[in-house]
Amino acid sequence: MPDSPAAIHAKGFASDNISGIHPEVLQAIAEANGGHVPSYGADPYTQQLQQVIRGHFGERATAYPVFNGTGANVMALSLLTERWDAVICAHSAHINTDECGAPEKLGGIKLVPLETPDGKLTPDQVARAAGGRGDEHHAQATVVSITQSTELGTLYSPAELQALVTAAHDLNLAVHLDGSRLGNAAAALGCGLGELTTDVGVDVLSLGGTKNGLLGAEAVVVLNPDRVRGPLFLRKLLGQLPSKMRFTSAQLTALYEGDLWRRSAAHANAMAARLADGVRDLPGVVITRPVQVNAVFAVLPRPAVERLHDQFFFYDWDQTTGEVRWMCSFDTTEDDVDEFVSAVSAAVGD
Amino acid sequence: MPDSPAAIHAKGFASDNISGIHPEVLQAIAEANGGHVPSYGADPYTQQLQQVIRGHFGERATAYPVFNGTGANVMALSLLTERWDAVICAHSAHINTDECGAPEKLGGIKLVPLETPDGKLTPDQVARAAGGRGDEHHAQATVVSITQSTELGTLYSPAELQALVTAAHDLNLAVHLDGSRLGNAAAALGCGLGELTTDVGVDVLSLGGTKNGLLGAEAVVVLNPDRVRGPLFLRKLLGQLPSKMRFTSAQLTALYEGDLWRRSAAHANAMAARLADGVRDLPGVVITRPVQVNAVFAVLPRPAVERLHDQFFFYDWDQTTGEVRWMCSFDTTEDDVDEFVSAVSAAVGD
Amino acid sequence: MPDSPAAIHAKGFASDNISGIHPEVLQAIAEANGGHVPSYGADPYTQQLQQVIRGHFGERATAYPVFNGTGANVMALSLLTERWDAVICAHSAHINTDECGAPEKLGGIKLVPLETPDGKLTPDQVARAAGGRGDEHHAQATVVSITQSTELGTLYSPAELQALVTAAHDLNLAVHLDGSRLGNAAAALGCGLGELTTDVGVDVLSLGGTKNGLLGAEAVVVLNPDRVRGPLFLRKLLGQLPSKMRFTSAQLTALYEGDLWRRSAAHANAMAARLADGVRDLPGVVITRPVQVNAVFAVLPRPAVERLHDQFFFYDWDQTTGEVRWMCSFDTTEDDVDEFVSAVSAAVGD
Amino acid sequence: MPDSPAAIHAKGFASDNISGIHPEVLQAIAEANGGHVPSYGADPYTQQLQQVIRGHFGERATAYPVFNGTGANVMALSLLTERWDAVICAHSAHINTDECGAPEKLGGIKLVPLETPDGKLTPDQVARAAGGRGDEHHAQATVVSITQSTELGTLYSPAELQALVTAAHDLNLAVHLDGSRLGNAAAALGCGLGELTTDVGVDVLSLGGTKNGLLGAEAVVVLNPDRVRGPLFLRKLLGQLPSKMRFTSAQLTALYEGDLWRRSAAHANAMAARLADGVRDLPGVVITRPVQVNAVFAVLPRPAVERLHDQFFFYDWDQTTGEVRWMCSFDTTEDDVDEFVSAVSAAVGD
Repeated sequence: MPDSPAAIHAKGFASDNISGIHPEVLQAIAEANGGHVPSYGADPYTQQLQQVIRGHFGERATAYPVFNGTGANVMALSLLTERWDAVICAHSAHINTDECGAPEKLGGIKLVPLETPDGKLTPDQVARAAGGRGDEHHAQATVVSITQSTELGTLYSPAELQALVTAAHDLNLAVHLDGSRLGNAAAALGCGLGELTTDVGVDVLSLGGTKNGLLGAEAVVVLNPDRVRGPLFLRKLLGQLPSKMRFTSAQLTALYEGDLWRRSAAHANAMAARLADGVRDLPGVVITRPVQVNAVFAVLPRPAVERLHDQFFFYDWDQTTGEVRWMCSFDTTEDDVDEFVSAVSAAVGD
Repeated sequence: MPDSPAAIHAKGFASDNISGIHPEVLQAIAEANGGHVPSYGADPYTQQLQQVIRGHFGERATAYPVFNGTGANVMALSLLTERWDAVICAHSAHINTDECGAPEKLGGIKLVPLETPDGKLTPDQVARAAGGRGDEHHAQATVVSITQSTELGTLYSPAELQALVTAAHDLNLAVHLDGSRLGNAAAALGCGLGELTTDVGVDVLSLGGTKNGLLGAEAVVVLNPDRVRGPLFLRKLLGQLPSKMRFTSAQLTALYEGDLWRRSAAHANAMAARLADGVRDLPGVVITRPVQVNAVFAVLPRPAVERLHDQFFFYDWDQTTGEVRWMCSFDTTEDDVDEFVSAVSAAVGD
Repeated sequence: MPDSPAAIHAKGFASDNISGIHPEVLQAIAEANGGHVPSYGADPYTQQLQQVIRGHFGERATAYPVFNGTGANVMALSLLTERWDAVICAHSAHINTDECGAPEKLGGIKLVPLETPDGKLTPDQVARAAGGRGDEHHAQATVVSITQSTELGTLYSPAELQALVTAAHDLNLAVHLDGSRLGNAAAALGCGLGELTTDVGVDVLSLGGTKNGLLGAEAVVVLNPDRVRGPLFLRKLLGQLPSKMRFTSAQLTALYEGDLWRRSAAHANAMAARLADGVRDLPGVVITRPVQVNAVFAVLPRPAVERLHDQFFFYDWDQTTGEVRWMCSFDTTEDDVDEFVSAVSAAVGD
Repeated sequence: MPDSPAAIHAKGFASDNISGIHPEVLQAIAEANGGHVPSYGADPYTQQLQQVIRGHFGERATAYPVFNGTGANVMALSLLTERWDAVICAHSAHINTDECGAPEKLGGIKLVPLETPDGKLTPDQVARAAGGRGDEHHAQATVVSITQSTELGTLYSPAELQALVTAAHDLNLAVHLDGSRLGNAAAALGCGLGELTTDVGVDVLSLGGTKNGLLGAEAVVVLNPDRVRGPLFLRKLLGQLPSKMRFTSAQLTALYEGDLWRRSAAHANAMAARLADGVRDLPGVVITRPVQVNAVFAVLPRPAVERLHDQFFFYDWDQTTGEVRWMCSFDTTEDDVDEFVSAVSAAVGD
């Protein structure tokens, strides 16, 4: 490594994207590095990925590998919308808060963000927000975008997902699922990836990878081809078509062909649980949200936060409440967690 | 490799992106895979890249690593334009022909494509196309985008570049250079990267990497910071911000820190020259354009083209004239070329 | 009139745009119909309008006549934003609810809608929503758009406006005021148009006209030229440049040169007050919002609403609460109001 | 009239939009000014217009009144395109040269402009430009936009139109016709409006009005409803929905219900012919294009042009060749023409 910019601890809790590449994934990249293959997806690695995807999501599923989550989400929403449409989402959704307006600015998509205490939409909310269809004065809300697991580290149960998707379809809304952490959700719920998507009727999925140990690869997975138009063109024009796609596909195959996705996600989830357990009873520390996947949200005294920031990089989630977020990764170790818990304990003066 | 989709020859001449990763680059990726570093560019690998870039392009240069060439070009043009602006380019420019309209569709940028026999713009053409400034009825042509080496495998000399940039600046037009094959150009001209960009006054550069042996990495390099606005925001909203940027930066550093870029590009250029020399005198084969970098354009009898397509993947460049394009890569060997020349010879029935 | 489509009453309360052209305005159009004048604004009528506008809004003000309110608002917001920016507004704002997503779809502008009980933003809300500046992950909230009078028929006092604009400027946010009913506001508050805009520091104004007796004419008025870029180009590319601008300008001059705007608006306001007074004590009728300008919002029993819909055209404002909206116009007469009040009385079975 | 800005002659030859409102049209506006009618098109005047439109264009035709030509064209093209599509047009087309990039900037539509000596596309040109369908790297050329009469004052014969539309349809391209001067074309060709549009298979028409004596009104006329999606939503979000639509519709009805359109257009055409005849034989004056409708293009010595500019407002069409354009209007009189001819004669020193 070049000289480090600061004496920040080598392992952090800022995000699951501060970690690197899982060794099995790096090995898969190296193995895909043989000779010449057609570019733009007409290669055997991408063919193989399609089989892996169909194994999880059913015979109608097609994966479109892309570079990153913003690209996946804008492409997914563009697939489902006309120029005059709007997309209902939770206010906390990544598409609303963390993509610098990419859905609006690249796709011309109006977002209809709904306040939710836990990052989860309800069928009633969606029904209320879907009014005004047919009236030319209103952008037409024709899609619901849900996130599993949510940006707040919470989970929809499969029954909740089923109820939400059914309500959406009854209103003739398509359903997009932002699954940048779908593996964490499935690992936590002890179910398969298809049970949270295809089986409940999701139409288009943004399938994550980078946050679960890839170098950089995500996929738009079309589950219901009857709902979409133009996937190849949209991927290209959105700047999301990897020329050497074999390496994008090989990463995704390495993650999803066997159980690497579940091993890595379950481990990250377990580390978050360990971290929460370790700090929960410390004086002045309040765990603010259910710890269901690999995120821990907490409030602690400001001086303690500042002392921790000197040693570890993590995000202040809400400046007004003082809430912070700590994320665990596939490569967070028990020692990393225990050391961090000790640092928190010291910071709060315990 | 998974089972191959077809009995196509393992080495082809379709594009410089059907090759894989140069071993030195793969090694650099592996070396960057240690522990946790901040995401989104606040990492030591990206810092190191900035030094490498300043070494080539001068102290005012800043690199913004991105995923691919379409992303780099749309970001570069967006940096230089207001919502009402237009960009002058050659008709054959990648931004005009091969990006599915991304400049118009993502950036709202009107292109003003000019016919050129050799892919190269002239100062006179630019002056004629830059009329109408100040008149609200016309999109305002405020940028010239040039490509070095061009899509037609041709080169601007440094003097031609200088004259073109000077003419543009005299008209108060900014200059973008699409350098997805800048290395091939510099290798062919025997000069440095800065001599073709900073030294002649280019304002913003799309610096290629993927076509010269990277897994997938390009950079927008701002050479004249006074001309641009909003690089960080534009990169993010265009879906071109790699979260694990260390791996993007490490690839670019591996390519541009030493002479790997020049070694690889010069080799690809030499293979194209060898290919051209091998087929030039075959009956019915006409080399249609100067072979200045790593592309060979040729016309040969249609039955011969079809016989070759059975064995090798390459592109029909112009269906109406029967022109084909053959590209060489960093890993094209003399044996590959000689075998292909033999196949051409057999195909034309020599 | 051609045969009417239905036996709906000739005077209605649906909106202030179901009325026609004020006779003085029609006269002004006819007077502007002499001979040839330059198109696109280089005519004496548009020059004259600039004087009228400067009389109201000060020497730095410039009017850009446009066709309609959606066009005025998108142009105004585009003037104030970069491609990566966001605009804070009330959830009930016309730009958020009634323009089919035009700000997002034409301008690529992300809206940040805030819930307000009365359609009015507060300085505290704006401060909370303006966080995240400088962070590339967030669209940059650089503008506040406020509406006076609001979509809910309420008014900011000049002091409230002043506090809001000051707060916005302190956060380095520009301020847009949607004044499609600015005349109604000024008439109700007994002040001048400049006191609600220039004097409190508004940067750009959408100045209404159509809802106050014009055939169809609005204007973007730039109050602070230091904040805007590209007004002529943006008007043209947004499809809002009238070729025979003399007629657009002559309408606006007719309205704003003397006191026609105030006479008409004050009359509409008075009719709304009369209407509210007439129905307020009817059984089952609840006036739901302060009646400050020319709108009356009420809840009444659903069967009564349906009986009224048979005779008069008006809008159901909120299907879930049963709230309806009744608007008065420059040409609503006391008899019209009294007749309507009688119909309401009959409908609720009084 | 307010004080005129300059001693420019009261009648000019700059454009057909420097004229005012035809008295019959102004009368129709006044007659539509009775009482209250629903806004946004649910009024009897708009119903009546639909009958008039069906009379010209057949039973499947529907008119969508809009404000201006830029709006009509962008709406028309948006109706026919997906986000990844491109539109083939003549380089001289208004959509390419005179709308400040509105098709690209509002609709995200890539234009493919083709060079033509006379402003007219040929079937062969269209076929060549329509290549690349199905390849994700290219914006998909799915529409041809033609202009009748052209920006260069030339005409397609009905047979030429038929051949072009048939060629387009055979390639599965939709056809848009920019008919901002369709009346001039039909008057010149002695045929009906439907013969140049519906009868030859045009899919969507931009029907002009403003340049033929209206205050300001155009219409998108959908001729083939099977080809379009979302007309009401697109009109609204493009800022082209007149709230008091009765006045827009009444203008169009006044023009197209009887023969006003033909009378006015034929007169303007005749005046252009008179003008051309008057100057054709003057020394140094060269009529540069066929005078088929209401435009005269000419080259004359630069000092003469400058002397004329002192007295009359008109456009320099091409600065490089010195070509100027003179347009005649519905209200250009024989005396106006004769006076102008005398001025030209004097200017060239005859």
